[in-house]
Amino acid sequence: MTTQFFGMRLAGISSYAPPQVWSNAKVSARLRLARIQRDAQLRRERGHGLTHDEAREFATSDRWVRRFIGFSERRFSTEGQGTADLATLAGRRLLESTGTAPGDVDGILFASVTPSYLYSPPDAALLQEALGIPILQGGVPREMKGADISLACSSWVASVMLAYALIRSGMARRLVVIGADRMSCTINWRDRSFATVLGDAGTATLCEAVPTEEDWFAPERFWSWLDGSHADIIKTPAGGSRAPLRSADDTIDGRHLLAMDGRAVKEVLVPFVSGPGIAAALGKAGWQLDELDVVALHEANLTLNEAILAQWRKGGFRGQVLTAGGRFGNTTSASVPLALSLNGDALTVGRRFGFFGFGGGLSASMAFGTIRHPMLVTADV
Amino acid sequence: MTTQFFGMRLAGISSYAPPQVWSNAKVSARLRLARIQRDAQLRRERGHGLTHDEAREFATSDRWVRRFIGFSERRFSTEGQGTADLATLAGRRLLESTGTAPGDVDGILFASVTPSYLYSPPDAALLQEALGIPILQGGVPREMKGADISLACSSWVASVMLAYALIRSGMARRLVVIGADRMSCTINWRDRSFATVLGDAGTATLCEAVPTEEDWFAPERFWSWLDGSHADIIKTPAGGSRAPLRSADDTIDGRHLLAMDGRAVKEVLVPFVSGPGIAAALGKAGWQLDELDVVALHEANLTLNEAILAQWRKGGFRGQVLTAGGRFGNTTSASVPLALSLNGDALTVGRRFGFFGFGGGLSASMAFGTIRHPMLVTADV
Repeated sequence: MTTQFFGMRLAGISSYAPPQVWSNAKVSARLRLARIQRDAQLRRERGHGLTHDEAREFATSDRWVRRFIGFSERRFSTEGQGTADLATLAGRRLLESTGTAPGDVDGILFASVTPSYLYSPPDAALLQEALGIPILQGGVPREMKGADISLACSSWVASVMLAYALIRSGMARRLVVIGADRMSCTINWRDRSFATVLGDAGTATLCEAVPTEEDWFAPERFWSWLDGSHADIIKTPAGGSRAPLRSADDTIDGRHLLAMDGRAVKEVLVPFVSGPGIAAALGKAGWQLDELDVVALHEANLTLNEAILAQWRKGGFRGQVLTAGGRFGNTTSASVPLALSLNGDALTVGRRFGFFGFGGGLSASMAFGTIRHPMLVTADV
Repeated sequence: MTTQFFGMRLAGISSYAPPQVWSNAKVSARLRLARIQRDAQLRRERGHGLTHDEAREFATSDRWVRRFIGFSERRFSTEGQGTADLATLAGRRLLESTGTAPGDVDGILFASVTPSYLYSPPDAALLQEALGIPILQGGVPREMKGADISLACSSWVASVMLAYALIRSGMARRLVVIGADRMSCTINWRDRSFATVLGDAGTATLCEAVPTEEDWFAPERFWSWLDGSHADIIKTPAGGSRAPLRSADDTIDGRHLLAMDGRAVKEVLVPFVSGPGIAAALGKAGWQLDELDVVALHEANLTLNEAILAQWRKGGFRGQVLTAGGRFGNTTSASVPLALSLNGDALTVGRRFGFFGFGGGLSASMAFGTIRHPMLVTADV
């Protein structure tokens, strides 16, 4: 029986982004096309086209997106390239770069909101196969932990927390934590709010047991939060079990695609994360804002994050902020590890970090720690 | 800093099944209606109706389902009653029956394959709100852990394992583990294979920290398995990120609904779970089949489970088998806790139990333990 605690380190992080670049101009043109199609459809159906207010939902521009969102471009998967495929490319690179044999992995936590398949099979099983992780050891079935984990934009940090619990308690030694999303398949091209934001990427992080004295984390350095009273502000109206797709009309109208009340997100999440949320999390960790050397925030929107950071700076934060630079969009479960993978130079031994997931639910998941070993960080983007 | 291990007990289990009963005869009639509609559609589209082989996919009977599946009836949710709603009714009863104040819950793990909403919001956040769990404590944000966890029919046992890791490592003290699914919304009425099987239910289990000497479990009493090489045998063709719904035709054809190769499931899963799977899991736990007093298997199909149990009995198993008696169908993430909730009399202190989840992925998740405290078990069915 295990009678020992373990610490955890992040031995490596790899990321993959599909090569298909969608500039703000391309997104804007795609929305314009959707507007023309919708206008023609409405003329047939109700005798007149889009009203001025309705047409505005399709209108955007490179200048507007750069100014109010901070994104210049994003990547979209190619046909047939689901979340598992993005994760596989990141996962293979992770095993190669860290010199990890597939047979040394004892679990996969797959953080995503865009599963490759509805209901079944789970992505964790697809990754076991795609990464060549053996199912037998010495002729008998080899134990392999796994689960698909979803908590909106907090999925990845929440999964790192679950990985820590498994490793700390001695239940696993080496876990691959995926953070991957094909968000392009959730875009409603009749609604600029998410169309100007979302992108696709896959990441893989190797979480390894280390002696407790080398632990990067601690139980009190994870903090989580749920507030379902604002569940409606980032919501997919139909296609889930509360409102299953009943007719073709549901798909035509895009009710199975993600929708957001952007103003409410800003009004609720920004004050929370910039004030009481970070205060509660740091209070539990026993840290101060000025002790954070390097942070990565879920890249929902760079201007939104700047508003949060401005408040943190007033509270003493002077650390480095790692981002994907607005070049990959909001990749949901991939965003924090993608930013880390693109800034490997900043992840040096001795630095104290903070990871911040927040979004739909509403949910938030935060993790603090100290880098105590060199990390193997690669980005294939 | 936490420097202590904890044990875990299951303080209580509650279940809820919606009142709408679908007998085998009703399922059979619904399939017959779908056959007539499909036949008429094909006559229009291709000039002739269903072939003999095609028509067979719609044919079933009460006698056939009882004989080959072992189910007599199942429950279906009413309109608008999603997985979160089934879980809420079970969760409220759990808190009442165990005398747990909502403010004493520090996390929700929501095991399900049928999320109430695609992408966002997560069900864990909906449950926080529905169960009245406070978001503030002493005027500051109250920590609340949570995640939606999906691993096909192994989701619930996998979530109990994750709950154990959180509690053992001192990261949580009192978790609600939901096991709930509205499987009726995944049924393709043109395919008898799942239509004769699936049902809806919600369950809630209270996982509580206890001193290690009272631990019901141990790290080595959990065993997990993934084999993605058989991912295709229980799969939803479209609607996930690998093949998003592109046109109304996808919904008309039911490609967004669950499909199964029933023969392959039997040929792969039955030999695995009845032989090397249980051997590996018990080997890790240091137990023998004859030490299990009471077991609950995922109720995919009672005849399939009987085939597994027949092999176990040859290996020395003489324990009691808890089931939902074929009256609730295959409720996926709810099936094991539903069977437990319906058989509270069997869950007495001192008995050694085994929980067995297995299914799509393929995946399996097993847990063994000893009941060391009275459980508060209720079923609202």
